[in-house]
Amino acid sequence: MRAVDIIHKKRNGGALTNEELSFLIKGYSQGDIPDYQMSAWAMAVFFRGMDAGETACLTMAMAESGDRVDLSPIRGVKVDKHSTGGVGDKTSLVIGPLVAACGVPVAKMSGRGLGHTGGTIDKMESMPGFRTELSREAFIAQVNDIGVAIVGQSGNMAPADKKLYALRDVTATVESIPLIASSVMSKKIAAGADAIVLDVKTGSGAFMKTLDDSEKLAKAMVEIGTQVGRRTAALISDMDQPLGFAIGNALEVREAIETLHGRGPDDLAALCVALAAHMVVLGGQAADLAEADAMLREKLRSGEALAKFKQFVAAQGGDPAVGDDPSLLPEAPAVVEVAAPKGGYVHAIQAEELGLAAMLLGAGRETKDSVIDYAVGITMRRKVGDPVSEGETIALLHVREANAAVQEVSRRVQQACEIGAERVAPSPLLLSIVTEQGVQRLAN
Amino acid sequence: MRAVDIIHKKRNGGALTNEELSFLIKGYSQGDIPDYQMSAWAMAVFFRGMDAGETACLTMAMAESGDRVDLSPIRGVKVDKHSTGGVGDKTSLVIGPLVAACGVPVAKMSGRGLGHTGGTIDKMESMPGFRTELSREAFIAQVNDIGVAIVGQSGNMAPADKKLYALRDVTATVESIPLIASSVMSKKIAAGADAIVLDVKTGSGAFMKTLDDSEKLAKAMVEIGTQVGRRTAALISDMDQPLGFAIGNALEVREAIETLHGRGPDDLAALCVALAAHMVVLGGQAADLAEADAMLREKLRSGEALAKFKQFVAAQGGDPAVGDDPSLLPEAPAVVEVAAPKGGYVHAIQAEELGLAAMLLGAGRETKDSVIDYAVGITMRRKVGDPVSEGETIALLHVREANAAVQEVSRRVQQACEIGAERVAPSPLLLSIVTEQGVQRLAN
Repeated sequence: MRAVDIIHKKRNGGALTNEELSFLIKGYSQGDIPDYQMSAWAMAVFFRGMDAGETACLTMAMAESGDRVDLSPIRGVKVDKHSTGGVGDKTSLVIGPLVAACGVPVAKMSGRGLGHTGGTIDKMESMPGFRTELSREAFIAQVNDIGVAIVGQSGNMAPADKKLYALRDVTATVESIPLIASSVMSKKIAAGADAIVLDVKTGSGAFMKTLDDSEKLAKAMVEIGTQVGRRTAALISDMDQPLGFAIGNALEVREAIETLHGRGPDDLAALCVALAAHMVVLGGQAADLAEADAMLREKLRSGEALAKFKQFVAAQGGDPAVGDDPSLLPEAPAVVEVAAPKGGYVHAIQAEELGLAAMLLGAGRETKDSVIDYAVGITMRRKVGDPVSEGETIALLHVREANAAVQEVSRRVQQACEIGAERVAPSPLLLSIVTEQGVQRLAN
Repeated sequence: MRAVDIIHKKRNGGALTNEELSFLIKGYSQGDIPDYQMSAWAMAVFFRGMDAGETACLTMAMAESGDRVDLSPIRGVKVDKHSTGGVGDKTSLVIGPLVAACGVPVAKMSGRGLGHTGGTIDKMESMPGFRTELSREAFIAQVNDIGVAIVGQSGNMAPADKKLYALRDVTATVESIPLIASSVMSKKIAAGADAIVLDVKTGSGAFMKTLDDSEKLAKAMVEIGTQVGRRTAALISDMDQPLGFAIGNALEVREAIETLHGRGPDDLAALCVALAAHMVVLGGQAADLAEADAMLREKLRSGEALAKFKQFVAAQGGDPAVGDDPSLLPEAPAVVEVAAPKGGYVHAIQAEELGLAAMLLGAGRETKDSVIDYAVGITMRRKVGDPVSEGETIALLHVREANAAVQEVSRRVQQACEIGAERVAPSPLLLSIVTEQGVQRLAN
C-alpha cells in the first residue's frame, strides 16, 4: 500500500477502505507518512468529502493511535458531553453534578483553554484548593463513590488527531465536516465514553456560522457514534451572543452555582437542562426527554443537584462552602462600568469580540504559557432584544486596576454591543436536535 | 502575506495575484514555505484550476527561480521545440538541422531520459565522439556560426519547478493542466526561447490519453506563451503507436539520418515537417505554413538539411561521415526476430510496452545511475493497419546476446502488438493545431 495511491483514490472521489485509512493514520502517527502527503490528502477530503463508513473508520484509527481510557470499572452507562466551544460556556460545571444527581455516572476529562477564557479545567481551578489531577484509580473510585469526577486530560490520547489538526490548521483544511467530526469523536471515544451528547454551537460567535452547516456537522458526528456503537445525540444552540452573563473563570463558576440554585440566567439554565436531559436518556435513567426534563427540574428544585456539586468540590479538594457562598471565590479588586453609548434595543452582542476582551483583561491565554487571572472578566447586563438607555451600564469589567488598557477594553465591549432603534426579538437559544432518528428543528 | 491564506483563497476558488504566486514560489524555493503547504496548494489547484493570468504568473515565477539562459547574442528569433514525450521520438535530431537550413537559429538544451529509451542527449551521444557539453560561449558561437547547437541542460534552471514536480509526483497532484503547462513553459522560458513549438502527444502511449485533454493542455501552454510574450504554437500528434520504426538510441539516430535523406518512415517525416513548419513561421522565415512546408521539402530534397546535419555533427566533435554511412554507429552483435503469433491486421501497438521492452534490453535507464547501451533496441516492421501473416517477422530485437531474458522481451513485444482479423484504418498522425487563433482539428 502506498500513500500516494490512497491520495489519488480520494482525489478521484473514491471511498477509502478501513485498511487504507488505518494505513494512513498509523503511518502518519509513526512518522512513516510525511506531512506533505497528509495535507494533500486532507485537501482532497475537503473537496471530495467522506461517507459515513469512511468517517467512522478514520475516527477509530485516530482514537486507537494513542492511550485509551478504560472506564469499564465504573458501573452504568458513561455518558460524555462535548461542546464545540463558545464564549461564556460553563455548562459542564452545572451538568456534571446535575446529571450525577440523576444516577448517570459522569467521568469527564476536560481541557484547558487557549484564547478567550479558560477551559472547564481552568474554571474549576479558580475554586481554591480544587485539584484537577487525579490518578486513574482515584478518578474511577470517585465516580463510583459520588457519581461525578472531572479531571484534566492526561496521557497521550488520540495523538494522530492532534498531529493532523495542527497540520490542517496551517494548510487551510480545517473546514471539512468529516474531518471536524472525526477529530471530536476520536477524542471522546479515546476518553472511554459509552454514549456522547454534543453541544454544537452555531452563529457569529461559533465555528459553524450557519444552522445548515451546524446540522451537517451534528449529523456527521451522530453517524460516527452510530457506526462505532456509541449512542450519540446533538443539540444545536445559538452562539450569536455569549451564554449567560459571565465571561471569566471565577465569574463563570459563580454563575454556574447560581444556576444550580435555580436562579441562573434563563439561557444557561435552559441549555444545561436540555443537554442533561439527553444525557439522562442515553444513560438509561429516563425513558424519554420529557421524563428526563421533569427529573432534572426536580433535582434542581430540591437542592440535590447543588448538594452533588458540593460533594464533587469537596472530593477534589475544594471548599464545599463555595456552593452557598460564592464570595469564597477570587474577586477582582476593581470593577469598571461600561456605559451604553446610546439608547435603544440590543440588536447583537459579538461573542467572539467579548471573548477577546476578556482575554485582554487576563481571563484567557494568549499563548500556551500565559498565566490566567481567575478573578478578572466581564459580566454582561443585557441580552439581545433587551431595551437600554443611553449611559446605562451594559456590562461590568472585573479588573486588577482601572488603567488605560481597561479603558480600551471598555470601548471594545461597547462596540461589541450593537444597539439600534427598532425593537428586536431575542434570538432563540435551542435550534435543532440531531439523533439517530434524524434532525428535529426547534425554531425558525 | 501567509501561505495558509493563499491556500485558503485558492481552495475557495479565488484567483491568486502575481504577488501571491511569487511569494509562494520564492518562499518554496528558499525553503521558507514547507512541502506540506505546497502540496495542499497543489491539490487545491487540481480542484479549482487556475486562469490564464495565474498560470502565466506561476510560470514566470518558476522560470525566474534559477539561472536563465541569455540567447540575445544570437541573431534572429530563437525558436525552441518541446515534446511532451513519446516512444521512438527522434524528431529533434531531424528538426534541428532542417530548421537551421531554413535560416532559423536552433539553440537547444535537451535532457537525458529516464525510462524507455534515452533522451535526445543520449541519442546524440551514441554517435562516436559527439560532445553535448559546450561552454555557454561555444554554444552561442556555434549557433551564430552554423545555425544549430544542441547541448545538455546545465546550470540550475527552474529549480522551483523541479522541486514542485517531485512533490506533485508523490502527492497525486501531477494531473493538473495548469500545473503541467506551467512546468513545461517555465523550463522553455528559462532556456531563453523567443518562441516555442510544442509537440503534444495524445493516446495510449502518452501522458494525455484523450484528444480533448491534449487540446486543453496545448491551449493552456499557448496562452502562457501569449501572456508572457513568447509566441507559441502546438501540434497534437498521435502516440497510440511508436513514432517511426526504431526504438533505441543509435537505431533512432540511424532513422533520423534516413529521414534527412528523404527516405524515413512516413509518420516521422510528416511530423518533423509539420513541427518544423511552425518553427519556420514563428522564426519569421516563411509567411505561412504552406510556404514553410514547401521550403522544408526543398531543403530535404536538395540535401541541404543533411549537409546541415553533418556540419552540426562535426561542430560537436562527431564524425560527419555518419550522415552518409550509418554503419559508423554502434551496432548490436545479435539480432533476434520477433514472429507474429497469428495472421491478420495490426490493430494496436502499445507504445509504452515497447518502450519498456527497449529499456529491458538496455536502451533506457531504470534508475538515474543506469548505463545506457547505445546499440540495443527494437526496430518494428509493421504499423497499425498493416496486414501480417502468422510467423512473419513483426520486429527485430537488437541485443548483446540472444539469451532467456531476450526471449522474455520478445514475448512482451508480441503481446504489445494486437493482431485482429478485421482490416483497420491506420490512425491519423496529426490531430490538431493549437495557436493563438484557437484550435484547428485536422482529423476526426
